[in-house]
This record gives sequence, structure tokens and C-alpha cells, in this order.
Amino acid sequence: MDYNQMALDLHEKHKGKISVVSKVEVADSVDLSVAYTPGVAEPCRKIAENKDEVYRYTSKGNLVAVVTDGTAVLGLGDIGPEAALPVMEGKAILFKTFGDVDAFPICLATKDVDEIVHAVKLLEPVFGGINLEDISAPRCFEIERRLKEELDIPVFHDDQHGTAIVVLAALINASKLTGKPFSELEVVISGAGSAGLAIAELLLERGVGNIIVCDRKGALCSLSDHANGAQRILMPKLNKRDEQGLLVDILKGKDVFIGVSGPKILTGEAISAMADKAVVLAMANPTPEIMPDEALKAGAFIVGTGRSDFANQVNNVLAFPGIFRGALDVRARDINMAMKIAAAEAIAATVEEDELTPEYVLPKAFDPQVAKNVAEAVRKAAVESGVAR
Amino acid sequence: MDYNQMALDLHEKHKGKISVVSKVEVADSVDLSVAYTPGVAEPCRKIAENKDEVYRYTSKGNLVAVVTDGTAVLGLGDIGPEAALPVMEGKAILFKTFGDVDAFPICLATKDVDEIVHAVKLLEPVFGGINLEDISAPRCFEIERRLKEELDIPVFHDDQHGTAIVVLAALINASKLTGKPFSELEVVISGAGSAGLAIAELLLERGVGNIIVCDRKGALCSLSDHANGAQRILMPKLNKRDEQGLLVDILKGKDVFIGVSGPKILTGEAISAMADKAVVLAMANPTPEIMPDEALKAGAFIVGTGRSDFANQVNNVLAFPGIFRGALDVRARDINMAMKIAAAEAIAATVEEDELTPEYVLPKAFDPQVAKNVAEAVRKAAVESGVAR
Repeated sequence: MDYNQMALDLHEKHKGKISVVSKVEVADSVDLSVAYTPGVAEPCRKIAENKDEVYRYTSKGNLVAVVTDGTAVLGLGDIGPEAALPVMEGKAILFKTFGDVDAFPICLATKDVDEIVHAVKLLEPVFGGINLEDISAPRCFEIERRLKEELDIPVFHDDQHGTAIVVLAALINASKLTGKPFSELEVVISGAGSAGLAIAELLLERGVGNIIVCDRKGALCSLSDHANGAQRILMPKLNKRDEQGLLVDILKGKDVFIGVSGPKILTGEAISAMADKAVVLAMANPTPEIMPDEALKAGAFIVGTGRSDFANQVNNVLAFPGIFRGALDVRARDINMAMKIAAAEAIAATVEEDELTPEYVLPKAFDPQVAKNVAEAVRKAAVESGVAR
Repeated sequence: MDYNQMALDLHEKHKGKISVVSKVEVADSVDLSVAYTPGVAEPCRKIAENKDEVYRYTSKGNLVAVVTDGTAVLGLGDIGPEAALPVMEGKAILFKTFGDVDAFPICLATKDVDEIVHAVKLLEPVFGGINLEDISAPRCFEIERRLKEELDIPVFHDDQHGTAIVVLAALINASKLTGKPFSELEVVISGAGSAGLAIAELLLERGVGNIIVCDRKGALCSLSDHANGAQRILMPKLNKRDEQGLLVDILKGKDVFIGVSGPKILTGEAISAMADKAVVLAMANPTPEIMPDEALKAGAFIVGTGRSDFANQVNNVLAFPGIFRGALDVRARDINMAMKIAAAEAIAATVEEDELTPEYVLPKAFDPQVAKNVAEAVRKAAVESGVAR
């Protein structure tokens, strides 16, 4: 199907994808007096007396800002805040469809880190959570870190953590099929940007044995003189044996390949050289690091991509709607590591043990049970880890 | 009715009044591929090539930001951005109900003029128009002026211009009943804040003969040493005979009283001393400058208030939904004087000549024809005055 033309037609026909509607009827002057003046003054007074009441009387508690500066949109790069809007609107409708979260696009006309942080802080009164999206690395790390410190509402950079959570879910279920325990897994990640590093961080937290992150120059190791700040912070935990070399060499004998890099960078031979029952998650979009048929032919046991037209789609939509649903439900101050791991476990557990096959390690994006399970697990983890209010 | 308790119940039950919904269905993987990845990349590319296409493929062209800092909310004063949210949500649902405009509350956590202007500029990619709301004077003048200069989308401070437009509409119809031409009208405005000055400016533009603005210290005149910047700019056009004194003295023999000040500041005697067929628009909320029955008993010919439970409600909802509907429809760069006057004429003309009585000089807030008529007039005025695109 020609998704491009279909997308143009759909977006033009509806003039975008979101609408702001009323949850209450305004059909007569009594309605008007209750929803607007003079009645509306009363909830205003209550909130003025106790700011916390804003969660009781307004939409804040269910509103998430989808914030971008348009610098790293899909695979298109720095296309600016206006051109990013279709993606942010898309995100908003997925939030609504799968999590019943009201999300609104905030596309900022600046690339300055201070200005972005400051603008989001000024918007805090309206929103119950912040979803950062398509902001280029390494700026996205500083923006997320500072907002997490300075805001009293949860902040989540989906390109990092959403992807990491779904990858972890896939590996949890993959391990059930391969029988390999996490502590012995040897994982290679291709791509040392925001997604790659977040995946590494989350997998380490969940107990993966060894992770080597590669970029175009090869494995991050003691010899890497080009590593940026975020990479340097993580490096002491990576690459236990300090392996050096290019991706294709590093991959030999490893259990898991995770690609968040570029199209067709792997050959079948590279896959054949991996360990037995190799897991290959080739998530470059729209063209994976290796096509699934080729990877399977070369001996991969489980193959996933970012695409809906192949098995095992690693799709962030499995994570973010339920994560924010859960975080908002308990007014979590943060989306912390415990909540992310709980989300991954919940996604994995949505696939029943007796359904689990190499072609089905992740639930379908449209399974309405996923967000419900994720939300429940996230609520529980938030309460247990002390960030719920 | 106890609107206060009803308002608390309504706001708590629905957790606020707005929701962000999808205009397109996301029911299967084809929908997802068209509304989100991979299809969404195509409208992104088109906008990246030509920024103007953002109006074709996104919701921007129908989105209005309702911007406040919470410093002058209703009659409650500086209650902060969180406590202002119920009012801004209320505004948003009126925009939707009457104008089919998608409006979103932007309550900013700052009172700094530079920061407010800058934050709104950063948000410009998402919105087709800016409605400023409940920002205290004189800061609101500078914020509006700078945003009008620096943004390429229409900016409208409703507390100023919305009120002014509806007042002008009331006076246009009042003149049909009194037979007094605008050029000979003697008007006294009580209240020298943002609404009072905007009313004066619009009435002057429409040809009202003489306008005297009073504050607590009396008429603005050559002796006024306490006038602020915005007042000084307008003063040369006001008070032709340089009358001096308090409101009650100034009002003697005048044709029109317009109150945007405080409760019960006028007596029946003051009204009795006005000219024959006096028009009294006492809009202090919730308690008018003089109660309608008292004004009528004292001889006023036409009386209006800001309240829905009396005749002739001067309600901004008659203006702003249609004004933004019209401005957005032609992608106006500005909401200029010609458009404001056209809006007032359209509101006035919605009351048919044979329906016109002293108790019915303004259409009802719920008349669905009002916004349609206003939008049409505003579109036409925008095109004729060269601000449509």
C-alpha cells in the first residue's frame, strides 16, 4: 500500500488529527453558569487556597505534553517544530486511543536547551506529565535530566525509555524460549544514541550479563576517544572484557543483537556467526539492519523489527500509553527505573506462556489488554517505590 | 441556584472540562501506518519543504492558545496559573461549542512580561491564533502589543476587545431605538483598566462623539497626574471639554454609562441625572454598578449587565468564537480594527429590527446564528483590510 499518499490524503482531509473537545455539555444558560461564569470562580478559589486541588477540579491530571523541538524526527532528522507536528499529533492520538490519556503537542521554536527546559517549566501548571519526543542526542539527555530534577510531574523521553522497555519485554520472553538466563546474556547494541544507551541502561538494571554498544567506529571500549558525556557515564558498566573492533567482529558468538542504527548494515554471515538461538531485534526504520527473512535464513532464532508488517514488532505504543496511564493514576512524581522494569514485565506477561513462539514474543500493538496490564504494573511499582502521591 | 456547589460537583466529576481526542480512527495496523509511522513521515516532509503546508496537514490552523498568567482572573485577582485553569478550560469549551475552534489552555508559571512573550513565541508552531486572557493591566497591553508585532498569527486580548466589541454591538442597536446618532453620543466609562480603555478606543473608532473615562479618582482629564502609559496614549482623544470631577458629577446629562468597575457604585439619582433615553451597561461581575431594576426605576431607557439572569447580557461569548472562527478561516495575520467593528455590526444585526426592544438589544449567548454571522463578517473584513492570506 502507498502509505505516503494515504497519509497525505488523511492529514489533508481532517486538517490534522487532534481536536480539543468539551467533556461537559453547554446547552443552556445554567450549563454556562456552572461550567463558566459565575460558577467557575468556585473551583478557582479552591485551587487558589490549595494548589493541589488543581488535580481535583481540572484536566491537568490527565494531560500530557508531547514536547519536541523537531531536531530528530523519525528518520528525517532536524526538520523543525512545524514539520514535527504530524508526528506529535500522531503520538497524541495513540495516547488517547490506547491509554485514554489527553495528550497535546508542544512543538517549540527553539533548539536551545535552556530555552526548552524553561518553556516546559512555564507550562507545568497545565500538564500532569511530560513526554519528550524526537529531540536530538546528546541534548535530549540534559533536557530530560534537568526537567526531571526541576519539575514535580513525571518526565519521560519516549525515544529512550519507550524503546528500551519494549526491547526488555522482548528479551524477557525470548529468554523463556531460549532458556538462556539474563545474567549470562551477551548483548550487542548497534547505535550509541539516545535509544541505544537507554536500552543498555535498562538491560543492565534488569541484570543482563554483558552489553557492548557499537557505533560506526566500532565498540565503545577503553580506546574510544570519541565518546560523548552520556556514553562515558555508562561505559564503566559496558563491555566487561573490553572488546575492541567493528560491529561485525564484536557480534561473533553473541546471543542478542539490538539494532537502533541504520538500514542493512548486517549480512547473513554476521548473523550466522552469532551464538546458538540468536535473538535479532533490527529496529532501524523503515529499513531494518537486516531483513527478517535473511536473518532467519542465516540461523537467527527470534527476529523482531520496528515494522508492523513483520513478526515481533518492537513498537513504543506497547509502552507509553500504559506507562503514563499508570503514572497519572497515582500522580507519580517520576517515572523511575522500577516503573520501567514493571512495564516491561507486564508487556512480556501479556503474551501467555502457551502462546509464546519465536514469532510471537511481543503482544500486538492493538491488543487493548497491553496498556491495562502496563498501567496496573506501573501504578503498583510507583506506590512501592515511593513516587506515588 | 447554588452555582458554586454545582460548579464544584461538575468540575470534580469530570476532572476538568476538556479532552484531546482523535479526529481519525486508529483501529488497525493500516490506520496506524497512515496516521503514524511510516506514513506520517510524508506530511512531515511536505512541511519541512514548505512550512506553509503546516496549515494543510496539521491541526494548527484550527488551534487557539488561551494564554494567561493568572494575574487577573475574573474578579478574583492574582490567583496564579493553576487556579486560572478552570476559567481557561471554560473558555476552551466555549470556543469549541460556539465556534468549532479547538482551544487549549496555556497557563504560564511566570508574571514576567518578557518571559510570557517569549514562551508564546516558542509555542507559535502549534497554534493558529492566540487568545490572551485574564492578564493584569497594564502588563496585558505590552504583552499584546509585542506579540502582535512579533507573531505571524492573530493575537487577541479578549478582556479588552471581546468586551469592547459586544458593548459596541449593544450601542449600535441602542442607537436604533434612541434615535441618537453616534457622532452626538456622550459616553461615560467607569473603569480605566484594560476593558475600559479598549471600549473607549473601539467606540472612538466607530465615531462616538465624546467619551470620558473615569477611575476611582474621577475623570481622566488634563489634571490627571496618575495616568499610566496606556491611558496617556488615549487621553488626547478623550474628554473633549476636559471635564473634571468624580463619576457622579461627570455622568450628569450624558447619554451612555458603561461600567467595567465595581459593584453598586451608582445610585438611582445619578442615573436620573443622565440625559433622556439613557443607556446603562453596568457590567461589574457578579454585582453590577447599579442593579437593573433600580436603574430602570430611575429612568434609564436601556439597561444591560454582564449577567445571564437579566436582560441584555453583555457576554464576550457573543464575540470571540466567531471572531477566531472567521480569522482562522482566512488565515488572518491579525485581528484588526476593521474586523472588530465588523464583528460588532454582525452581532447587532443578528437582532432583527422588528425584534429590537429596550430589553433586547443583544442576541442571546446561545443563539447559534451569532458566531456564524460574526465569522462571516470577520472573514470579509479580513480580506478587505488585507490581513487574510
